[in-house]
Amino acid sequence: MNNITMKLNADELIMAALREDITSEDITTNAIMREAVRGKVDLICKQDGIIAGLWVFGRVFELLDPDTECEFYFEDSANVKAGDLIATVTGDIRVLLSGERTALNYLQRMSGIATYTNSAVKLLEGSNTKLLDTRKTTPNMRIFEKYAVKAGGGYNHRFNLSDGVLLKDNHINAAGGVKQAIRMAKEYAPFVRKTEVETENLDMVREAVEAGADIIMLDNMSYDMMKEAIEIIGSRAETECSGNVTLENMEKLKELGVDYISSGALTHSAPILDLSLKNLRAL
Amino acid sequence: MNNITMKLNADELIMAALREDITSEDITTNAIMREAVRGKVDLICKQDGIIAGLWVFGRVFELLDPDTECEFYFEDSANVKAGDLIATVTGDIRVLLSGERTALNYLQRMSGIATYTNSAVKLLEGSNTKLLDTRKTTPNMRIFEKYAVKAGGGYNHRFNLSDGVLLKDNHINAAGGVKQAIRMAKEYAPFVRKTEVETENLDMVREAVEAGADIIMLDNMSYDMMKEAIEIIGSRAETECSGNVTLENMEKLKELGVDYISSGALTHSAPILDLSLKNLRAL
Amino acid sequence: MNNITMKLNADELIMAALREDITSEDITTNAIMREAVRGKVDLICKQDGIIAGLWVFGRVFELLDPDTECEFYFEDSANVKAGDLIATVTGDIRVLLSGERTALNYLQRMSGIATYTNSAVKLLEGSNTKLLDTRKTTPNMRIFEKYAVKAGGGYNHRFNLSDGVLLKDNHINAAGGVKQAIRMAKEYAPFVRKTEVETENLDMVREAVEAGADIIMLDNMSYDMMKEAIEIIGSRAETECSGNVTLENMEKLKELGVDYISSGALTHSAPILDLSLKNLRAL
Amino acid sequence: MNNITMKLNADELIMAALREDITSEDITTNAIMREAVRGKVDLICKQDGIIAGLWVFGRVFELLDPDTECEFYFEDSANVKAGDLIATVTGDIRVLLSGERTALNYLQRMSGIATYTNSAVKLLEGSNTKLLDTRKTTPNMRIFEKYAVKAGGGYNHRFNLSDGVLLKDNHINAAGGVKQAIRMAKEYAPFVRKTEVETENLDMVREAVEAGADIIMLDNMSYDMMKEAIEIIGSRAETECSGNVTLENMEKLKELGVDYISSGALTHSAPILDLSLKNLRAL
Amino acid sequence: MNNITMKLNADELIMAALREDITSEDITTNAIMREAVRGKVDLICKQDGIIAGLWVFGRVFELLDPDTECEFYFEDSANVKAGDLIATVTGDIRVLLSGERTALNYLQRMSGIATYTNSAVKLLEGSNTKLLDTRKTTPNMRIFEKYAVKAGGGYNHRFNLSDGVLLKDNHINAAGGVKQAIRMAKEYAPFVRKTEVETENLDMVREAVEAGADIIMLDNMSYDMMKEAIEIIGSRAETECSGNVTLENMEKLKELGVDYISSGALTHSAPILDLSLKNLRAL
Amino acid sequence: MNNITMKLNADELIMAALREDITSEDITTNAIMREAVRGKVDLICKQDGIIAGLWVFGRVFELLDPDTECEFYFEDSANVKAGDLIATVTGDIRVLLSGERTALNYLQRMSGIATYTNSAVKLLEGSNTKLLDTRKTTPNMRIFEKYAVKAGGGYNHRFNLSDGVLLKDNHINAAGGVKQAIRMAKEYAPFVRKTEVETENLDMVREAVEAGADIIMLDNMSYDMMKEAIEIIGSRAETECSGNVTLENMEKLKELGVDYISSGALTHSAPILDLSLKNLRAL
Repeated sequence: MNNITMKLNADELIMAALREDITSEDITTNAIMREAVRGKVDLICKQDGIIAGLWVFGRVFELLDPDTECEFYFEDSANVKAGDLIATVTGDIRVLLSGERTALNYLQRMSGIATYTNSAVKLLEGSNTKLLDTRKTTPNMRIFEKYAVKAGGGYNHRFNLSDGVLLKDNHINAAGGVKQAIRMAKEYAPFVRKTEVETENLDMVREAVEAGADIIMLDNMSYDMMKEAIEIIGSRAETECSGNVTLENMEKLKELGVDYISSGALTHSAPILDLSLKNLRAL
Repeated sequence: MNNITMKLNADELIMAALREDITSEDITTNAIMREAVRGKVDLICKQDGIIAGLWVFGRVFELLDPDTECEFYFEDSANVKAGDLIATVTGDIRVLLSGERTALNYLQRMSGIATYTNSAVKLLEGSNTKLLDTRKTTPNMRIFEKYAVKAGGGYNHRFNLSDGVLLKDNHINAAGGVKQAIRMAKEYAPFVRKTEVETENLDMVREAVEAGADIIMLDNMSYDMMKEAIEIIGSRAETECSGNVTLENMEKLKELGVDYISSGALTHSAPILDLSLKNLRAL
Repeated sequence: MNNITMKLNADELIMAALREDITSEDITTNAIMREAVRGKVDLICKQDGIIAGLWVFGRVFELLDPDTECEFYFEDSANVKAGDLIATVTGDIRVLLSGERTALNYLQRMSGIATYTNSAVKLLEGSNTKLLDTRKTTPNMRIFEKYAVKAGGGYNHRFNLSDGVLLKDNHINAAGGVKQAIRMAKEYAPFVRKTEVETENLDMVREAVEAGADIIMLDNMSYDMMKEAIEIIGSRAETECSGNVTLENMEKLKELGVDYISSGALTHSAPILDLSLKNLRAL
Repeated sequence: MNNITMKLNADELIMAALREDITSEDITTNAIMREAVRGKVDLICKQDGIIAGLWVFGRVFELLDPDTECEFYFEDSANVKAGDLIATVTGDIRVLLSGERTALNYLQRMSGIATYTNSAVKLLEGSNTKLLDTRKTTPNMRIFEKYAVKAGGGYNHRFNLSDGVLLKDNHINAAGGVKQAIRMAKEYAPFVRKTEVETENLDMVREAVEAGADIIMLDNMSYDMMKEAIEIIGSRAETECSGNVTLENMEKLKELGVDYISSGALTHSAPILDLSLKNLRAL
Repeated sequence: MNNITMKLNADELIMAALREDITSEDITTNAIMREAVRGKVDLICKQDGIIAGLWVFGRVFELLDPDTECEFYFEDSANVKAGDLIATVTGDIRVLLSGERTALNYLQRMSGIATYTNSAVKLLEGSNTKLLDTRKTTPNMRIFEKYAVKAGGGYNHRFNLSDGVLLKDNHINAAGGVKQAIRMAKEYAPFVRKTEVETENLDMVREAVEAGADIIMLDNMSYDMMKEAIEIIGSRAETECSGNVTLENMEKLKELGVDYISSGALTHSAPILDLSLKNLRAL
Repeated sequence: MNNITMKLNADELIMAALREDITSEDITTNAIMREAVRGKVDLICKQDGIIAGLWVFGRVFELLDPDTECEFYFEDSANVKAGDLIATVTGDIRVLLSGERTALNYLQRMSGIATYTNSAVKLLEGSNTKLLDTRKTTPNMRIFEKYAVKAGGGYNHRFNLSDGVLLKDNHINAAGGVKQAIRMAKEYAPFVRKTEVETENLDMVREAVEAGADIIMLDNMSYDMMKEAIEIIGSRAETECSGNVTLENMEKLKELGVDYISSGALTHSAPILDLSLKNLRAL
């Protein structure tokens, strides 16, 4: 996550998260430490996985106090093992204690998503099929969660409703059919966007191809129907397989030769990666 | 979640989540529907579980358009089954389409937490031990996630660093020992707060009792050590068992007679409950 | 501009504009009118042109007082003539007076852009070439100005840096060439976006076509070079002509058969359309 | 624009403008440049005019990254010629690319206003008549546009409705006449403000003088009526001529000996001054 | 305080005050009342004084819940006696309980200021001298406190640093003398503002008059010096007496014939007026 | 007030206070000083008292310009005398002038509260009774005012409605009695909070003790009734005396042996401590 994105889009959210955790003051820390004492603490990994969000982790402390310094021994996307020393954080001990939970809440969640994504990406190795996320992200976490998907080796689908066209069943019904929907979208949407259509059967697939859809989503289709759909489409559009994608059935999907597989579970159901701050010592 | 909390604390977050998903406009929906058409859609459950967050779900649509109406057929905390019709939403179809994902992102996550919490609470049935959440929540989701824990039958630990005293190892070290830490906390913290201390061995437990701790956390102790600690403490303080609490070992913990068991997994690793909006029809 | 966009994205800006004009109170109005008196005022057009932004105009008054009512006699995109009664606004006279300037500042600017855009669009009539805006908008006015371009018959280019890929000379240099830049963009950007490349000569055009650019911008090229470029490209990419587009040379450009012509002047240099509130009377 | 105004009032608006242009990330730049590379770029003028807003231009980059440095070769209010090197900006190339458009959108507009204002000011040279702006500014741009008017040699009328009293026809009607309106305003308004009245005929002028108006605006009067009004007023009040002021009729107005001429066109209809960033090179 | 000021400038502050008091939820009220019950409560005065801020008081409840209704038996500026029933508030009892403290904190402080101001204003009765407030207000309370001063019969000095010119000793020194300072201010400041100068001796007074100051402040002068200063000034400028103004010496000042007396104590040291909510009953 | 609290919770309020005072620019200062000149000014005490809020005072200038430096000769809680040099502030003279009033408004109010609190605390010397504040603070000033109470030697009651349980008469009525109210609160509230009950007579006191209240408030009781209540309670709960606490009757209350005395006057009616910035000189 580069500095500009951090400044413009992430900082506000991180500040809000810190204010959620400290509405007036950290009474425990302030009770015990009346003065600033410089100290250092270790970020230790407690599970194997993929690390993601180190800059966000560090930014939490920096926003509390610009004199805090993080030294990182891994980079985002790296494989980490239980017991690994991931980073050290040096600064006013009160800052280390007060920022700990928020920093870990971000890092654990982002690393959990990267780890889960990576396990799915590995199942697709050897194919040209790419793994996509969805908009099924935690509210006010999208920028972090989509970044984590990329850190885990996945790809991002549209960021939100403003930057991608995806015609679903309801849109198609409202427009009066696949062709009309595609035509209306091409007329209305800024011309830099591709037009994607969700299809549920082969008739819709055929209609979408003819109407010039750029991407055709095969939604909740059977394996055989998807296979046939991909043959129909050929190279005339990109293809995306969606619906009930699990780690279990992904290997089978890979044989299909679909361009993309999208999965909401990457962001809505990945468990966290366990990490903790240990060995706080005064300097 | 009552109306005041919704207005003061939740609305801002929900609006931010909507703006995360719609930075300029919902181009797909606006391409297809140039005028307002009133419609209705069903909220259907796709998995068994506990529903939580219905007011938040409804509020998403209301904030987009106060003329949207939700009719709920269940209340928060209710058991729901796959296939159940949970609610209907009636309003401008563009509002239904544009708000759908954000509303579901909240509801699915909150219901997932309630469902997971409830499965743990059931394991404690027949004992006086209560299940607590932690501060290991998703950033900017705490108010929703702590509510979901209660909807699932759990209890809330402190909300944040400003409203509860919890002396951990680092605080104790900095203060120069358990007794000093407790004394400093009692001196500093607003007197309406109880003082909780995290202990790792029986010496710390004894010291905490003598120093007048209100709550003693038994952190990552063995079963036998916890048992002995609880005997030492007797009725002189409340007890909380923490660390590596899983659905697997909870039944054993229940025999201990500890007052509280706290678990970060309730909020950081519960998978979502699958729900979806179906059957959109114009009215 | 639909209600959702208004609520999520425009309201904040309109409120900020109102606060810019009223930092404590409207002292003149409050000095003269100590109590609420209901009144009505006419919105009169003082120049011929295209009207755009009526909902924004009305929203200014509504945000000050939801009991204000606007009756519109034209719709956005309509041709209006000097002297036309465009709308009436009814409400607390203090609201009418205090909101007048902000409401007109929006409406005049938006209508000015629509009018200017429309005069350019007319020059392209009879061709398939569409007129595009750019990101050369007034800060914190983009959502209103891009809407006004559409109201005038133009089309929107990308909304901002997050929702469209446009590789300019600096990007191409940094990437090491047109091909590398296109490859890197296709690899990095969410797959729902098209890849546009800015080209300055025919070699770049050829390279862009071969590398699979979706859109090729012909930047500041001579008429003859553009003609040749368009022949080279054929149907393999969309084409956009940019740079020094004026009302004067647009007719010539139209013969080229380019898909799009983009012009910054639509938003950065259009004069306003003169409108005013007249005939305030108490009811 | 001094640092305090920048920090308190401009920074928020500039940040909002940057967020308008980068809602998640600059995908083009991030695709091409994965790491920070320090570079330098030239700010070149492409038209003759008056430059205004250099600090705002620099602040855009500084807010993205405090390590960006601007070197300016001109100061605000200076005459610049097509081809002049106005400034160089040095920093992370990604910052230069991502901030370019927003920085130029401010600078071009502010310089356009300064240039247009200056051309009008020159027509008034040799007289004591001063040129004033109005509240007809672009929403959320007032602080920048009023500054630009001063940079061009003009003067500022009241900043907003809270800091100046201006009794217009509607206020006068509501109060029951010129005298009553002036009396009510003097009674109500904080005493540090002067009271200005808009007049449309000589009777109103006489009444305003007698009632002790500090400033009398001659609104849309004929040349002869203005001349007579100014004689009536003498030195008993300041005079302001308003309505349909154009570059064409300003020289004639100058002979009148009016104290102030106000013109909305300075801020609502000035075309931009063309400027661009060129010659980006890595360091 | 009219509705526009309330909406644009007061609402944000009131919401912030409510969020200061309710960071997650009102746990006491929510523990006891799980469902909405409609009730009514009386606003009772416990001290004699001047009431001010009734609309703000009511707005606190309205912002929590628009279905809350206030019936007022007095208007702002009215004399109230201990025991008087000032208003009743009807609504969801949880809203009444949760909003009580914030509503009273505003009303008590505003009424305290109005009461204290009025006691000072009475001492000036029979003279033409008006009582002014200053900028010595409580941070983020200025709009409420300045309103309260007016409700108590006082007048407002400038609202803030942006809407009035007041040249103090430091400004005068920096400018190189009284004359230079006045000249620079008249040149720089928007022409709708008067120029006020703070003077400490008769030489400064003379210089200020000659330089055309609109208002001359006599700062911390002796009674005799002020008397002489007022004679020197005559009708050539307005006069303001400032510094160590107390209820004790105000009667003496009144004989001076000064136009204005300003006092910081009105807003920085007035004790509150005691008010409370009583007799809550369910309906 | 430590740095974290300052950053997360105070900075926003201080910025809002500065924007309240400078909505566009400090016209007086900008008129006189067109360029930055470095200067120094003294903070002088004009009354004896307790100083509180020095970091807040300094932060005002720092937020305007990080290059401003404060040197403090006293620390918060110190006794200061009229004439003492409390601090010097060095920086751009325009920053010193523009920030002066806001910085003093905070410091004077906070020091006034600390001074008043300290005078009350001294009356309790020799006893174990501690002095508490209440929620009767100025809106948007709570964090500063509660800090000032501690600086004056007092203690903080709950910060707000979210972090403490206090069952008042209305809650007790709604719950159906003291016992039920306490039971419901213990069931509902996060377990880290103590339960406090307000009692008005000895029956309520007895009921509260039996129901396990942690803290019992004796509200507006006579001296004799309080004495009896304290005997009844013994060591079974903490005791708080509230209602009509004044400097006059505090010595008598001290003999009671009550644990806490709470007083709203500390924050709602303390007059300011007079302080001023003097001797501004250029460096």
